[in-house]
Amino acid sequence: MHTLLQPGSLTPKTGTAAPARVAVAGATGYTGQELLRLLSRHPSVTLTAAMSSGATAPSSTAPRRLPALARVWTGEITPLSPETLRAADVVFLALPDAAAADLGPALADAGVRVVDLSGAFRLKDPAERARWYPETHRLPEGVAYGLTELERGAIGEARLVANPGCFPTATLLALAPLCGAGLLAPASDIVVDAKSGVSGAGKTPSERTHFSECHGSVAAYGVFSHRHGAEIEQGVTRAAHGPHPLTFVPHLVPLDRGILSTIYVRLTAGATEDTLAQVYQQAYAAAPFVRLVGSSLPEIKHVAHTNFCDIGWRVDSSGRAVLVSVIDNLLKGASGQAVQNLNVMLGIDERTGLW
Amino acid sequence: MHTLLQPGSLTPKTGTAAPARVAVAGATGYTGQELLRLLSRHPSVTLTAAMSSGATAPSSTAPRRLPALARVWTGEITPLSPETLRAADVVFLALPDAAAADLGPALADAGVRVVDLSGAFRLKDPAERARWYPETHRLPEGVAYGLTELERGAIGEARLVANPGCFPTATLLALAPLCGAGLLAPASDIVVDAKSGVSGAGKTPSERTHFSECHGSVAAYGVFSHRHGAEIEQGVTRAAHGPHPLTFVPHLVPLDRGILSTIYVRLTAGATEDTLAQVYQQAYAAAPFVRLVGSSLPEIKHVAHTNFCDIGWRVDSSGRAVLVSVIDNLLKGASGQAVQNLNVMLGIDERTGLW
Amino acid sequence: MHTLLQPGSLTPKTGTAAPARVAVAGATGYTGQELLRLLSRHPSVTLTAAMSSGATAPSSTAPRRLPALARVWTGEITPLSPETLRAADVVFLALPDAAAADLGPALADAGVRVVDLSGAFRLKDPAERARWYPETHRLPEGVAYGLTELERGAIGEARLVANPGCFPTATLLALAPLCGAGLLAPASDIVVDAKSGVSGAGKTPSERTHFSECHGSVAAYGVFSHRHGAEIEQGVTRAAHGPHPLTFVPHLVPLDRGILSTIYVRLTAGATEDTLAQVYQQAYAAAPFVRLVGSSLPEIKHVAHTNFCDIGWRVDSSGRAVLVSVIDNLLKGASGQAVQNLNVMLGIDERTGLW
Amino acid sequence: MHTLLQPGSLTPKTGTAAPARVAVAGATGYTGQELLRLLSRHPSVTLTAAMSSGATAPSSTAPRRLPALARVWTGEITPLSPETLRAADVVFLALPDAAAADLGPALADAGVRVVDLSGAFRLKDPAERARWYPETHRLPEGVAYGLTELERGAIGEARLVANPGCFPTATLLALAPLCGAGLLAPASDIVVDAKSGVSGAGKTPSERTHFSECHGSVAAYGVFSHRHGAEIEQGVTRAAHGPHPLTFVPHLVPLDRGILSTIYVRLTAGATEDTLAQVYQQAYAAAPFVRLVGSSLPEIKHVAHTNFCDIGWRVDSSGRAVLVSVIDNLLKGASGQAVQNLNVMLGIDERTGLW
Repeated sequence: MHTLLQPGSLTPKTGTAAPARVAVAGATGYTGQELLRLLSRHPSVTLTAAMSSGATAPSSTAPRRLPALARVWTGEITPLSPETLRAADVVFLALPDAAAADLGPALADAGVRVVDLSGAFRLKDPAERARWYPETHRLPEGVAYGLTELERGAIGEARLVANPGCFPTATLLALAPLCGAGLLAPASDIVVDAKSGVSGAGKTPSERTHFSECHGSVAAYGVFSHRHGAEIEQGVTRAAHGPHPLTFVPHLVPLDRGILSTIYVRLTAGATEDTLAQVYQQAYAAAPFVRLVGSSLPEIKHVAHTNFCDIGWRVDSSGRAVLVSVIDNLLKGASGQAVQNLNVMLGIDERTGLW
Repeated sequence: MHTLLQPGSLTPKTGTAAPARVAVAGATGYTGQELLRLLSRHPSVTLTAAMSSGATAPSSTAPRRLPALARVWTGEITPLSPETLRAADVVFLALPDAAAADLGPALADAGVRVVDLSGAFRLKDPAERARWYPETHRLPEGVAYGLTELERGAIGEARLVANPGCFPTATLLALAPLCGAGLLAPASDIVVDAKSGVSGAGKTPSERTHFSECHGSVAAYGVFSHRHGAEIEQGVTRAAHGPHPLTFVPHLVPLDRGILSTIYVRLTAGATEDTLAQVYQQAYAAAPFVRLVGSSLPEIKHVAHTNFCDIGWRVDSSGRAVLVSVIDNLLKGASGQAVQNLNVMLGIDERTGLW
Repeated sequence: MHTLLQPGSLTPKTGTAAPARVAVAGATGYTGQELLRLLSRHPSVTLTAAMSSGATAPSSTAPRRLPALARVWTGEITPLSPETLRAADVVFLALPDAAAADLGPALADAGVRVVDLSGAFRLKDPAERARWYPETHRLPEGVAYGLTELERGAIGEARLVANPGCFPTATLLALAPLCGAGLLAPASDIVVDAKSGVSGAGKTPSERTHFSECHGSVAAYGVFSHRHGAEIEQGVTRAAHGPHPLTFVPHLVPLDRGILSTIYVRLTAGATEDTLAQVYQQAYAAAPFVRLVGSSLPEIKHVAHTNFCDIGWRVDSSGRAVLVSVIDNLLKGASGQAVQNLNVMLGIDERTGLW
Repeated sequence: MHTLLQPGSLTPKTGTAAPARVAVAGATGYTGQELLRLLSRHPSVTLTAAMSSGATAPSSTAPRRLPALARVWTGEITPLSPETLRAADVVFLALPDAAAADLGPALADAGVRVVDLSGAFRLKDPAERARWYPETHRLPEGVAYGLTELERGAIGEARLVANPGCFPTATLLALAPLCGAGLLAPASDIVVDAKSGVSGAGKTPSERTHFSECHGSVAAYGVFSHRHGAEIEQGVTRAAHGPHPLTFVPHLVPLDRGILSTIYVRLTAGATEDTLAQVYQQAYAAAPFVRLVGSSLPEIKHVAHTNFCDIGWRVDSSGRAVLVSVIDNLLKGASGQAVQNLNVMLGIDERTGLW
């Protein structure tokens, strides 16, 4: 059971438990680098391997390829080796969906606990999964959806944690408590307009992520066709008392790290800003990484380079509400939440290595 | 009557009409500078005065204060002088609302034609105007709302043109034709999520526009309380067959020039992307500055530093539509549209000085 | 002979000369797009072809590939065809060095006048050219170096104009007049520290130009190995009374368009800021695109999206001078200067199509 | 005596020493906020007061004014109180020069150890200090210049540590070892061309730091008149075997955090890149925060949000060298180095609270 601690006083790991042996597969992308940075400083972890599917031989010159990690992490990048992964206690997969779809179940079957940062295991409904992630041929036993604040219990027991997408993390942390409290007007439309920094598109250069195309521009993309839309709908359906049509449109904005999700809903009669405040406070009383800012509204700058999710809201007299949620897409939206999930799996203070 | 011309062949101004004598009041802000830049090159205009309410004496060193205009415009900035303004044929007001609220009617009464870039005369309903623009004590005769593509006839005859706000320009150009064609589901919600570059906040330094606060950040502001929301509602009400609740949330994004407005609506049964294409093509057949990009969706980069408005749209099988509209906030969203309106007032090719 | 005109009054093209038939080879890169934009509005030009070496068939959907040019230019992009190019009066080559090295002499031999934006013909010394541009097998007759303000006479007569590099343009416009006036201390070191926007690296995505790598960063590159260093040295040697060791280091800065070149020199005894002012004023008395800002120092923002070069300078009591020069790398540093050179070749007002 | 430890294994603080009682005066500026963030997590520190000269009453709503610190630091901001400061073991002054010039000596006289982030006590020569910091009426006993890597011994003993400027930190860490090794050609010119993010200009809005003025621009400033030039000259003179004329020009670049300093020097005959490598390796063998990247050259991105200084270099065959040094201006260039100095003063591992 999670207990919220005062800032600055992490609960020491009880007893003399040996550090967990942890390996990272997919170590050179943006999320992989963040994982290395976080895990190399994590007091309850021994980093046993950092692998890249692109590596063909052990690279003793990791710092040259990952200059920001020099002196921070001094290991080497090795080629992807399922055998070596099986020797770890916990494996982080930061791989493309198809590779994760293969490796995840194999590792879980072999008794290795897995935190998967791909999308391969996020959708529970087989039809939806077949539509959006056709590479995923099967789910292993013991899959938990890794939105920490909403699924702590399942994560603690899970064999494989499907770390959520960045947009669903920001959006569902704001939306799910209202759905759960029955505060959305029945069958009312939900609009999710999300703005993401460019690091969300990954490390591979493309026309869309070319500096001169992004700088000074904003563009919508994936309208009615983004897989995170299905993941958000799954979360809403799971939390709400009935169905809600949901429109999700992500936008690329000219910054590096961060997501701001603006969510438009209709509330049941009588709900006010105070109603929402109470619901959120109850939902996140024991959540060290959720900060409620109410009507002052959050900004990306305040959460960049942290694992926080800041949530604000406004309600007008006719029952329309605007929710605003911000995260760092590489931390709370990916690698930070993955480490937070590791902590839950290990039964240690959720903030370890992230504070 | 407007006729669309082929690109590259501006209709020559007929006959030997003398250039219009034009003055600018409020010449040193961002919109004022753009006006000077555009008007100084305009072939049908003689720029007779450029005034600043902050000037206390004629400044022969305008280039030092407005370095980007050096060699482009060589006049001097003079103190605000209503007498001098009355000697012009047309006056552009790029002043704070209160100053425009005073000067506009006085000039119009004196027979000077006015293009006002403030908000003072945009709202026609007295109650709404009193709420959002309490400084405006009266409307002169012959006010037209200056959204050129929708109001050409009235602008051609007007004594005072109320140049629209930047957000309403981008939003209504996408929304009004659908309203006019009765394509919105009756009484359905409209959500307008707009993203604006920081130049929209003007030239005066503030904490909100401090570089280190904006860089790497996105923030929503003015939720349920932005005056442009009332202006957009006015435009929707004017065009639609019935009322629509409208939620408007602007956001500051870390770029200098440009607005992207994402608009979420419910269509009447049977409406498709093709339906919208036909409605837009008909609405803008003779509009040289509106470009329809359909499902490929527009980006701010493609309209920055131009007077274009690019509009795209997507419709799903359940009748939800997403409209995306982009403009340069200082040109089509302010000074460019002001010059476009001048051209309509003078009866010359709408593109003169803007192409 | 060039005469400086007052702003706003372009000298009309004399007589009834037919428009020049102009073709662009390499129309889809950033410089090619700028050329299309400028030439499509140029009053003395008919654009007869826009070719891309990547095109395999005529593309009637140019706007889809070049969205910012929609309605601005309505032609089609065709595959590269030397035969068609030979039918033009003037051809602009915006191609890789090797392609230009082949096409340039062939076109010049066929009597077509060429403005080449590659580096193939910029270096006059055969040994230097062989070192930096080994693809260039020969120079045609009548090559002029296209730094307009310094080479107007030669450009007017040239068969092939080698349009300068962006860094040499910014740097030599500030440095050459001082060299020419004998103001540099004999054999003294020159340091050129240049900062360039990312569009200077072209349109092809790469790790270096990936948004997330550039945003929030600055990096030096090409130290002691950038070809523009040799081009700057050529310009200094040509202008100065003796040799000067020169160190040139370019840097990538997180903006799209613009170059700022900071130049550190030692002056001969007695030279002051006033001395420099006189030298520059004399050098650029008839240069409409050079603006002298003296000790107030120029900024990239003031020249972005223009063909101007702004030059400022500071001198201390010990004879050290700092020169600062700014241009838009795609306009004065490439396509704008190319059109300026076209105007000189056609004997028309240098500002035509650029003002 | 400092000992370099392996990454990941901080030396535990010896014995059972009580945490140092630390206060911050000037807690709401950018450097003050970084100090609060670092000190609130520092295991050897108790933060006893956070004061702002602008506060008139204790503010229990610190998070509202400093939103990025919410949940990170939960104290309150109080008005500046010299009495309270005197009760601390160590006081950090992040105040304007004049306020620090008064408070610093008073606190030091009272036996409080001081880390001063202003410029008031950086220059040792009375004439230079009188010229650049006329507010500084006297130096207390026991002042050390706080460039940690170069002055560890003095810092460990100091009563008042004058934390260096951001530009001198980046520049001297690259330049001083070469000066000390006698590698600069006698009396040769040094050119320092520095590029700084806008947070270096502080938190107060101004025209220069207005987003729309900085975005897309680069500007030189303070040519021959920046106080950090005198500080760099002091460091060079202290380290070198003879005088060197030095030209320092800072530039504002459009990013938030980081400095890149490009340094141009002439080496003594025979010096090569390897020579420099040896000198740097010897100088920084025990420096955990200096990373030597040699000819691959460092980038701001690699050090942003860290306390590292990365140094690279290139040498050509004629003895010209280009040194490139990067830091985060708010961490190694200000608050990070201040905490590093605290660690040296407390005799604990230099990396405590910074790793």
